[in-house]
Amino acid sequence: MTIITLTTDFGYRDGFVGMMKGVIWGICPSAQIVDLSHDIAPQNVAQGALLLGRAARYFGAGSVHVAVVDPGVGTDRRGLAARIGGQYFVGPDNGLCTPLVEAARRAGEECVFAALDNPVYRLPNVSRTFHGRDVFAPAAAHLACGLNLEVLGTVISDPVLKPLPAAQKTADGWLASVIAVDAFGNLATNLSWNEALGGSLTIHIKGRVIKGLSTTFGEHAPGELIALVDSDGQIAIAQVNGSAARVLAAGLGEAVEVRFEDGSYN
Amino acid sequence: MTIITLTTDFGYRDGFVGMMKGVIWGICPSAQIVDLSHDIAPQNVAQGALLLGRAARYFGAGSVHVAVVDPGVGTDRRGLAARIGGQYFVGPDNGLCTPLVEAARRAGEECVFAALDNPVYRLPNVSRTFHGRDVFAPAAAHLACGLNLEVLGTVISDPVLKPLPAAQKTADGWLASVIAVDAFGNLATNLSWNEALGGSLTIHIKGRVIKGLSTTFGEHAPGELIALVDSDGQIAIAQVNGSAARVLAAGLGEAVEVRFEDGSYN
Amino acid sequence: MTIITLTTDFGYRDGFVGMMKGVIWGICPSAQIVDLSHDIAPQNVAQGALLLGRAARYFGAGSVHVAVVDPGVGTDRRGLAARIGGQYFVGPDNGLCTPLVEAARRAGEECVFAALDNPVYRLPNVSRTFHGRDVFAPAAAHLACGLNLEVLGTVISDPVLKPLPAAQKTADGWLASVIAVDAFGNLATNLSWNEALGGSLTIHIKGRVIKGLSTTFGEHAPGELIALVDSDGQIAIAQVNGSAARVLAAGLGEAVEVRFEDGSYN
Repeated sequence: MTIITLTTDFGYRDGFVGMMKGVIWGICPSAQIVDLSHDIAPQNVAQGALLLGRAARYFGAGSVHVAVVDPGVGTDRRGLAARIGGQYFVGPDNGLCTPLVEAARRAGEECVFAALDNPVYRLPNVSRTFHGRDVFAPAAAHLACGLNLEVLGTVISDPVLKPLPAAQKTADGWLASVIAVDAFGNLATNLSWNEALGGSLTIHIKGRVIKGLSTTFGEHAPGELIALVDSDGQIAIAQVNGSAARVLAAGLGEAVEVRFEDGSYN
Repeated sequence: MTIITLTTDFGYRDGFVGMMKGVIWGICPSAQIVDLSHDIAPQNVAQGALLLGRAARYFGAGSVHVAVVDPGVGTDRRGLAARIGGQYFVGPDNGLCTPLVEAARRAGEECVFAALDNPVYRLPNVSRTFHGRDVFAPAAAHLACGLNLEVLGTVISDPVLKPLPAAQKTADGWLASVIAVDAFGNLATNLSWNEALGGSLTIHIKGRVIKGLSTTFGEHAPGELIALVDSDGQIAIAQVNGSAARVLAAGLGEAVEVRFEDGSYN
Repeated sequence: MTIITLTTDFGYRDGFVGMMKGVIWGICPSAQIVDLSHDIAPQNVAQGALLLGRAARYFGAGSVHVAVVDPGVGTDRRGLAARIGGQYFVGPDNGLCTPLVEAARRAGEECVFAALDNPVYRLPNVSRTFHGRDVFAPAAAHLACGLNLEVLGTVISDPVLKPLPAAQKTADGWLASVIAVDAFGNLATNLSWNEALGGSLTIHIKGRVIKGLSTTFGEHAPGELIALVDSDGQIAIAQVNGSAARVLAAGLGEAVEVRFEDGSYN
């Protein structure tokens, strides 16, 4: 019972995701399928990559992550399958797997990449616009049911990787930026809890100053703007019972400055 | 093959629900997972409770209902697991399980409550903001795979229960209120079919008068405002092929008066 | 492990789909359930039928397709189960199965229709407004677990079929129309690739002229309006990295003219 996760920008309305599941279960009926998100902003590869990177750690060895945010579909961009540590990735070769590869390499785990150039493991008719159904779903299903990665296509060593911008050290702290906005309007930054650790700090965003990190929403009054460590271990800005994104009119890329006020940072 | 249902205010975009499924299937691969809704209005505990109460009766004995609408996450509000009649509830101890408990007690069934204070059945690292993933998903998965409720934590006798307002008897009928608005814009009230039974009635909402209960949408012209017994057995207001919520500008809490015009009510 | 697909206009918010799954798994725990879409526009039978027709070919023999877009629920419109080629359909008898029947008949496959008039295979209490849960989910679950179609009710020969408008031949090409708008804003027409094959053509929509069929999005500049063969094999209008529906203010039914400019068409 291998898990296949799906992350796309297809939305939920048009049946595209359902077709992929039909293809998957036609090849590998025992696969368990999890929708991570189908509401990635159209063609936003970075958002899809980030979400997949955050979610993958909650899935076990052997899980197959299919991600299809694919502005280059039908061009000569390669299809990619990869064994990344103990898990698999299948999708376009456009950087979607970057966070998975970074995490595996940090952990000293092996990554093997294959271009999906073996036509045997595609649907008989491959459309020019829907490789999620015609190429990636079949490849994922075959992996989930035990096919060796290397059979799917030529092993390559130059997958496209697109690292997210990192928070920058400054004289008195960090210059970070918003890398994710969730459905609650919480703003996650690229600064992790470990980096921000160690002193009395203030967080600056759009001219507003937040003192310190809160440990929970519930200890503040509704409407208050707070900073906290989010469920992904990142510094985040939130409004209690509200939307920080809306109240600050802030979105992806917004600058967030963290200053250590008492010189505790060095 | 035990069923676990999920009801949250997490939305479908950010992958939070998918992470919960990864955790669940990592612990109990044979569980069958049903999404009831992830579009509960943020922090609206009453809406989540109502939806869960309406849906649970369509699931069999042993089903585990996870509900996470959790404005108090990270405070000292307790986590709760409960055996309610033949089914299980897992979620914050904030009233979400109220309709399940009320239905079980009406049926004379036993309810046992446990605070989720045994750290063995959580993820190794519990975040302060995402207990759905770190506490409730593991507890539900362990229950689905056969763990005894009492092992999850200390049995308690004072769970938080928050009954919905009941319809009030008046001189000539009932004063009810809207307790749910569905995606079609139908307005469900807290007055059940059994209570409204028994005579020629008129329904009054926002100055509009509806005569009698219709038995179906199809017997009326498009655009007409009707009252009917909804699929949950409650008196509801609907617009044929339209949205009663929009045409009446009515929402949760709106007063609905039912008058028995011919004295048949006593 | 039979697949049951679900296509409805119930939305994702109110738990209706989850109740159907509870009913299905209560009867047939081994069924695999796929959500095709629950965002069909309210009461838009044609949209539901089209989506189901496009998706069904990606599911194997024995699959059961449940579609509930049902403005006539509670009237005397019949409930329908059908064996259409090697697959099954369950839903209201209002035309939802038309594309499945058309495809099967083109392929020379048998279609058998039964009115769902055997009360044994419904829930004990059938509401007037939610046959998806009370009638269609049970019927589908029984079919998925091996019940003979003919046991569900009386075999009939006059199911409601509502064919979509076909593209019309003109002096120099085709007069087509938009039959689907997907979440990206791509406009699919009722003209298939085979019909448009064979020469140098121009596509005309709302006064704009598009020269030729593109083979992929990626070969054009962002913002450019293109025509292409979509993943369903139909001629479609798209805007690269944008929404053709928005930029053209075009929707369902919009006229699309295809002209063969070089006389290659006859």
